[in-house]
Amino acid sequence: MHAWFRSPPWRVLVGLAAALALMAGANAADAQKAKVVFNAKDCYECHEAIQEFHEKNAHKGVACDSCHTGLPEHRRAGKGRPTTSTDPATCGKCHENQMRTMYTMNVDKTAYKEKGVATLGALDKLLMPHGFTREHNEPRSHAFALYDQLVVDRAFGGRFVNKDGPAGLARMGGDFNIWDVLKDEYPGEPHKAFKPGTAAAANPVCMSCKSADYILDWAYLGDPQPGAKWSRLSKVNEFVKDTKHSLNCIFCHDPHSSGPRVIRDGLIQALSRPEKDTLWHKDPKATKIEIKELGERGFVRKIALLAKPDSNLQCAQCHVEYNCNPGFDPATGQPITMADQRTNHFPLKAVNDIGQHYKDLKFGDFKHAVTGATLWKGQHPDAETFYNSTHQKAGAECSTCHMPKAKDPKTGKTYTSHWQTSPKHYVKEACLGCHKTWTEKQAVYSIDSLKNRWVGKMRKSEFWLTRLVDKFEAAQNMGVSTAVLDQARAKHSEAHTHWEWWSAANGAHFHNPQQFDASINKGMVISQEGIKLLDEAMAKRRADIAAGNASTVPVAAGAGSKQP
Amino acid sequence: MHAWFRSPPWRVLVGLAAALALMAGANAADAQKAKVVFNAKDCYECHEAIQEFHEKNAHKGVACDSCHTGLPEHRRAGKGRPTTSTDPATCGKCHENQMRTMYTMNVDKTAYKEKGVATLGALDKLLMPHGFTREHNEPRSHAFALYDQLVVDRAFGGRFVNKDGPAGLARMGGDFNIWDVLKDEYPGEPHKAFKPGTAAAANPVCMSCKSADYILDWAYLGDPQPGAKWSRLSKVNEFVKDTKHSLNCIFCHDPHSSGPRVIRDGLIQALSRPEKDTLWHKDPKATKIEIKELGERGFVRKIALLAKPDSNLQCAQCHVEYNCNPGFDPATGQPITMADQRTNHFPLKAVNDIGQHYKDLKFGDFKHAVTGATLWKGQHPDAETFYNSTHQKAGAECSTCHMPKAKDPKTGKTYTSHWQTSPKHYVKEACLGCHKTWTEKQAVYSIDSLKNRWVGKMRKSEFWLTRLVDKFEAAQNMGVSTAVLDQARAKHSEAHTHWEWWSAANGAHFHNPQQFDASINKGMVISQEGIKLLDEAMAKRRADIAAGNASTVPVAAGAGSKQP
Amino acid sequence: MHAWFRSPPWRVLVGLAAALALMAGANAADAQKAKVVFNAKDCYECHEAIQEFHEKNAHKGVACDSCHTGLPEHRRAGKGRPTTSTDPATCGKCHENQMRTMYTMNVDKTAYKEKGVATLGALDKLLMPHGFTREHNEPRSHAFALYDQLVVDRAFGGRFVNKDGPAGLARMGGDFNIWDVLKDEYPGEPHKAFKPGTAAAANPVCMSCKSADYILDWAYLGDPQPGAKWSRLSKVNEFVKDTKHSLNCIFCHDPHSSGPRVIRDGLIQALSRPEKDTLWHKDPKATKIEIKELGERGFVRKIALLAKPDSNLQCAQCHVEYNCNPGFDPATGQPITMADQRTNHFPLKAVNDIGQHYKDLKFGDFKHAVTGATLWKGQHPDAETFYNSTHQKAGAECSTCHMPKAKDPKTGKTYTSHWQTSPKHYVKEACLGCHKTWTEKQAVYSIDSLKNRWVGKMRKSEFWLTRLVDKFEAAQNMGVSTAVLDQARAKHSEAHTHWEWWSAANGAHFHNPQQFDASINKGMVISQEGIKLLDEAMAKRRADIAAGNASTVPVAAGAGSKQP
Repeated sequence: MHAWFRSPPWRVLVGLAAALALMAGANAADAQKAKVVFNAKDCYECHEAIQEFHEKNAHKGVACDSCHTGLPEHRRAGKGRPTTSTDPATCGKCHENQMRTMYTMNVDKTAYKEKGVATLGALDKLLMPHGFTREHNEPRSHAFALYDQLVVDRAFGGRFVNKDGPAGLARMGGDFNIWDVLKDEYPGEPHKAFKPGTAAAANPVCMSCKSADYILDWAYLGDPQPGAKWSRLSKVNEFVKDTKHSLNCIFCHDPHSSGPRVIRDGLIQALSRPEKDTLWHKDPKATKIEIKELGERGFVRKIALLAKPDSNLQCAQCHVEYNCNPGFDPATGQPITMADQRTNHFPLKAVNDIGQHYKDLKFGDFKHAVTGATLWKGQHPDAETFYNSTHQKAGAECSTCHMPKAKDPKTGKTYTSHWQTSPKHYVKEACLGCHKTWTEKQAVYSIDSLKNRWVGKMRKSEFWLTRLVDKFEAAQNMGVSTAVLDQARAKHSEAHTHWEWWSAANGAHFHNPQQFDASINKGMVISQEGIKLLDEAMAKRRADIAAGNASTVPVAAGAGSKQP
Repeated sequence: MHAWFRSPPWRVLVGLAAALALMAGANAADAQKAKVVFNAKDCYECHEAIQEFHEKNAHKGVACDSCHTGLPEHRRAGKGRPTTSTDPATCGKCHENQMRTMYTMNVDKTAYKEKGVATLGALDKLLMPHGFTREHNEPRSHAFALYDQLVVDRAFGGRFVNKDGPAGLARMGGDFNIWDVLKDEYPGEPHKAFKPGTAAAANPVCMSCKSADYILDWAYLGDPQPGAKWSRLSKVNEFVKDTKHSLNCIFCHDPHSSGPRVIRDGLIQALSRPEKDTLWHKDPKATKIEIKELGERGFVRKIALLAKPDSNLQCAQCHVEYNCNPGFDPATGQPITMADQRTNHFPLKAVNDIGQHYKDLKFGDFKHAVTGATLWKGQHPDAETFYNSTHQKAGAECSTCHMPKAKDPKTGKTYTSHWQTSPKHYVKEACLGCHKTWTEKQAVYSIDSLKNRWVGKMRKSEFWLTRLVDKFEAAQNMGVSTAVLDQARAKHSEAHTHWEWWSAANGAHFHNPQQFDASINKGMVISQEGIKLLDEAMAKRRADIAAGNASTVPVAAGAGSKQP
Repeated sequence: MHAWFRSPPWRVLVGLAAALALMAGANAADAQKAKVVFNAKDCYECHEAIQEFHEKNAHKGVACDSCHTGLPEHRRAGKGRPTTSTDPATCGKCHENQMRTMYTMNVDKTAYKEKGVATLGALDKLLMPHGFTREHNEPRSHAFALYDQLVVDRAFGGRFVNKDGPAGLARMGGDFNIWDVLKDEYPGEPHKAFKPGTAAAANPVCMSCKSADYILDWAYLGDPQPGAKWSRLSKVNEFVKDTKHSLNCIFCHDPHSSGPRVIRDGLIQALSRPEKDTLWHKDPKATKIEIKELGERGFVRKIALLAKPDSNLQCAQCHVEYNCNPGFDPATGQPITMADQRTNHFPLKAVNDIGQHYKDLKFGDFKHAVTGATLWKGQHPDAETFYNSTHQKAGAECSTCHMPKAKDPKTGKTYTSHWQTSPKHYVKEACLGCHKTWTEKQAVYSIDSLKNRWVGKMRKSEFWLTRLVDKFEAAQNMGVSTAVLDQARAKHSEAHTHWEWWSAANGAHFHNPQQFDASINKGMVISQEGIKLLDEAMAKRRADIAAGNASTVPVAAGAGSKQP
């Protein structure tokens, strides 16, 4: 284990007053009245590693008790644990504009926009019986990332509801503690589906891209460890009671040094895989990282410090495909439970490599209700899609288009907008800086046209995939042989990936239109191949039945046949 | 029969001049020139019941010949029948703002908005072979309620068309006599389908929520009675020739007393059912009613006077589920014709009780074209949905949100808007009066979000229901046993009700979102149960066929099997 | 061959200077500096026919070298060929407003709006395996007519792409040479599909409604002729390299006389058919035409001069159903290749006659992938739909609503707008001139309502047609007899035409709503008849199987059965 943060516990914190006087924007007189004053140097006595982070960087003037409470008691006792604020409001005391924009909502992103509506049943047919068929809404914004995950019908079985009922929908974003807003209608009950039409598919790993509140109580990769309060195997209904804030600042910003970082363990594991096989490894311009092992509390935690801010990596903590659910080994059918590290896993690979990656990992997400094919359920592979796009190769990163500079209307100072929304909301900043001859109208026309392309191809892809599923069902009912059905299943698995990727990704129409085109068309061709082989088998079966040879043809027993 | 209105016919009407002088807003000098002057007291001589209504109420100063013509002749003869105006324009002479707003159209509600479009075929598949599959548009407004019912492809077989052809679509609402606008392309022909793709499904009962023009010629419940010109059994193509005005004022307002009332006989029957089983009976705050038997012309009519205005009841004359068509007894399959009172029937019950209600009534609407399941076709159960909602329990009624107070721009006087439209058109009046901390944006965001929820769940519900239908078809073709098909039919019937309710109701996303959620999800679970039992039977059948036991399995003969 | 244009080659062109001095808007002094000056009279010496056209008409003052280069060499040699500009910019030097508006784009018509999206798969299912299922976008405007045909996935197999990649979408219309914008990613390769999901279905005939650049090198009907560089059989990938401009002015305007004309040979052939069976022949108000045979280069070309401008005919050069692809003889199944004149054929008939027309022509477009029915793929039958509509009978033509008069903001002069867009963009000019009592709101309300009608009925039609296809598939799998399947195929063919017409036509909701209603409903009834006969056969088959008589029923062998 790394020695960082291992200051001897008997060193006590005293005299932070000098540091406090330096604290940006704080009124020293007021602060003196409000709290006991410490000197960071006293903390440094034990926490040398913190000193390294803190004293040479932008936050050097921020007093320890700006973010921690219980320091006097901790110092006196020489042990125990001060509290650490993970509330974005703590950061927002100084970084007001950043915090405000971070939780600015998209008013045009109303709640409950079910994604399947645009597909009229195709999404439901293609994902049967996956939990995402219960409810799968378009994301609203960072402000609601945590809240929406608790109330969605697929995650907690309907136990959490807004205290104000439907009137609670009137909330206009902002930073809020979800437990001021939500109530548990079934306190004391285990994690399960409480209402018809719901599922209880949440787990601590899938929650870990919604909030970092858990971070000090979570060992690397969520392994169960003595001293770690939470793990992948924790009861998620209890885990979330300990989770308050959506998408904390500390995901991307190290609070001691203020430097850029990543904290999602699955990503850190991927970036340090010996195979060096991720898109980041293969990117010639990739930002260098330094992985630090932490572990003040007797178990290992890791963070990765970035040599410079790189939103491609910082956003990739959540805006990626990552596996966060139990599954099964496709070769053996054996279940893979949350006890297995593969349930917290980041591939960080491109669409053409994702199928092989999971084959090599021996992990399957779910079996399709009709065909029994092993299918992949993607999380939002946004960073992967952006890698090797025209814009990325030209040096753009996520923030180039999504986090434009803005000016504080009062002070006139420039800050980075943290409002995560479509760049269509600030075309001038996002597009015209590079496309200097364009008007805003031209930019919007181009974006909208690419959206059309995506919509058109997605619906076509769904037509062919659902046709494959329907054809499979008919073929099975006709008694087409298991061998042919297995071939069709293999086609289904492969074709599905080339649809699911673009169904799950955000901004899938824009981030890499050329890759989209090639992949979505490839998937359609595979679906058509599957249909063709079933059609041929059915024609043969019709002829056999007509000729009286039907009984010699082996009949498929069900959807559960072994996947090749 | 009640004695009300039974004044001796020899008493003659004379001298209404004094009353006329009092007539609100009338110019007495002009009026004297224009008509023979009567004194209401002379009418009272025979019409004592009218006196009771008229002389103590707001309309006491409104002369009898304001609404009736032929009074001198009637008085002289001591018999015969003066005319009674049912034209809203008659009321509008004084209540100008109310009448104008009543017939204000929703310009955003263009004509021919086919509801099935949003479902892309699911509505057609789920309602086969019901007449609503021919054409089923989103309602436009009260101004077009009568007109649209005459031209819709399912009602009169295409016989009625606009005299101006498609150019007639330019009409911008208003109070108009439909026969100034429509022509019958097949005069003299019986009621039937004249054009491909049309049906002739209209009847006098279904017309009775579009206009009250028929009211004096219609016995209670539309029973055929001597002296009653019209009945449930009348030829509807002749009936509508006698119908001119859409949604007359007299539906809700008693013209003699100006007091609130209801006139729809089916509703009056429901409110007076000995079982006391309607939502109104169970509402602790229910407005008291007094049912009056009328019958000046030798047959019974009834009206219900309300102790106070109550739009929940007044609107419930039409905005409810009511049966207005022939059907069959589900137990015996025997047809139920318009001769049966059950063809003019109001349940006034909640979604969870509607299935049992019709079972007890021994009434089925139609059999599904594929499964043969007995299905319910709902009319707009809006009042029922609103009962027991958060808003209703808080004391709101229909008018709270749909009929805000408005100010006459000339006189500055306040009047009740009768413009029936989405409250989104006047959020300030409809929402912010109670939700005092909200902005309009918040109200609209909440409404739109609830709409999303409804859309998302509806489409999912249609996915599962259509899958049940398709699965049934495949199972039947495979020779799955009649016993299993009958079980699937029962699931279809029940699941269908939990979709149809929310498909047919107006404002289904808003009026009771919690009830919607529970019911729509319940329906989906039932559909899934039906699919599961068919899937299992098909798997068994596949195995039987493979094992050579197929011929021992009984085969379903068709869709017409008896419904459990 | 007609003698027109056959001036003896030894006559040389001299002295166009006088004519040049008259040239509208030209600066004679500048012109003298820039080019050798000719006198039109010198050209007339050989080109007498041109003289007839030129000297008495509006263009008499336009010098020959305004549109032709190489004249001095041509005159000196007394043979060879001057160049002829087909660039709209040449006309635009004088007709600036007309040219500008011609290539004004519709900013609301973004690229890649896939038509099938609105049908969610129905279009794909109904057109399988036709090339239009690869990509079939809503048209953008005349500016992109040529460009979009080159990049669409169904036409050139994906070989042509924008040099700027997706950024090229920012082009805002205008007149441009497509080869300044596009590149061939596979130069030297033959015409074929290069990328998954694409097809190579283009041919020179289908290109001939996108550009007239080819016109001087194309014999009548595109027959291969000595001296004609291009023909129906040319390699289309080479043909398009010689094609630069979209929808040249010379389609409709004779450059020598400036008079109205048509040049599409298929239309000219239809108008001169001995059967006199087109809608134009039957129109009592039809504009007279004079067909001229040209052929300066040793092969016959034809143009038709109009007695007066008639946009119904001029637009009918492209906005019609025309066959421009290979097919097969439905009776024999024999292929019909591009060598056959039927691959450049205009019926110019109404929807009710189109099926019989192609039967008589012995031409079938394609066989449906599932049913094997011979199906018609329509091009945009816009002119045919407009014939006999209320507006056409009242004297309107295409230009009445689509080409309003506009005023040049600088000169104040009136010109005819050539911006082809929805009249909703200029309701005042397009509608209110005739509908004088209407407001713009009323016009828009009417148009939108008719659009709703179209959308509603189209989706219903697709429901029934796809149900027929699905039912056919199930029936075939059950072993329903070939005889019944053939009957169902006949229904499919007929019903399909009554959908495809209204799917392919532009403005199908507005141009003839009464015809639309009758036809689309007729098609639905035919689909239902087909479904019924399959349902009955399947019920019988179920009974036969149950009774053990299955083996006596003949089984369909596949989709390729002979079409009745």
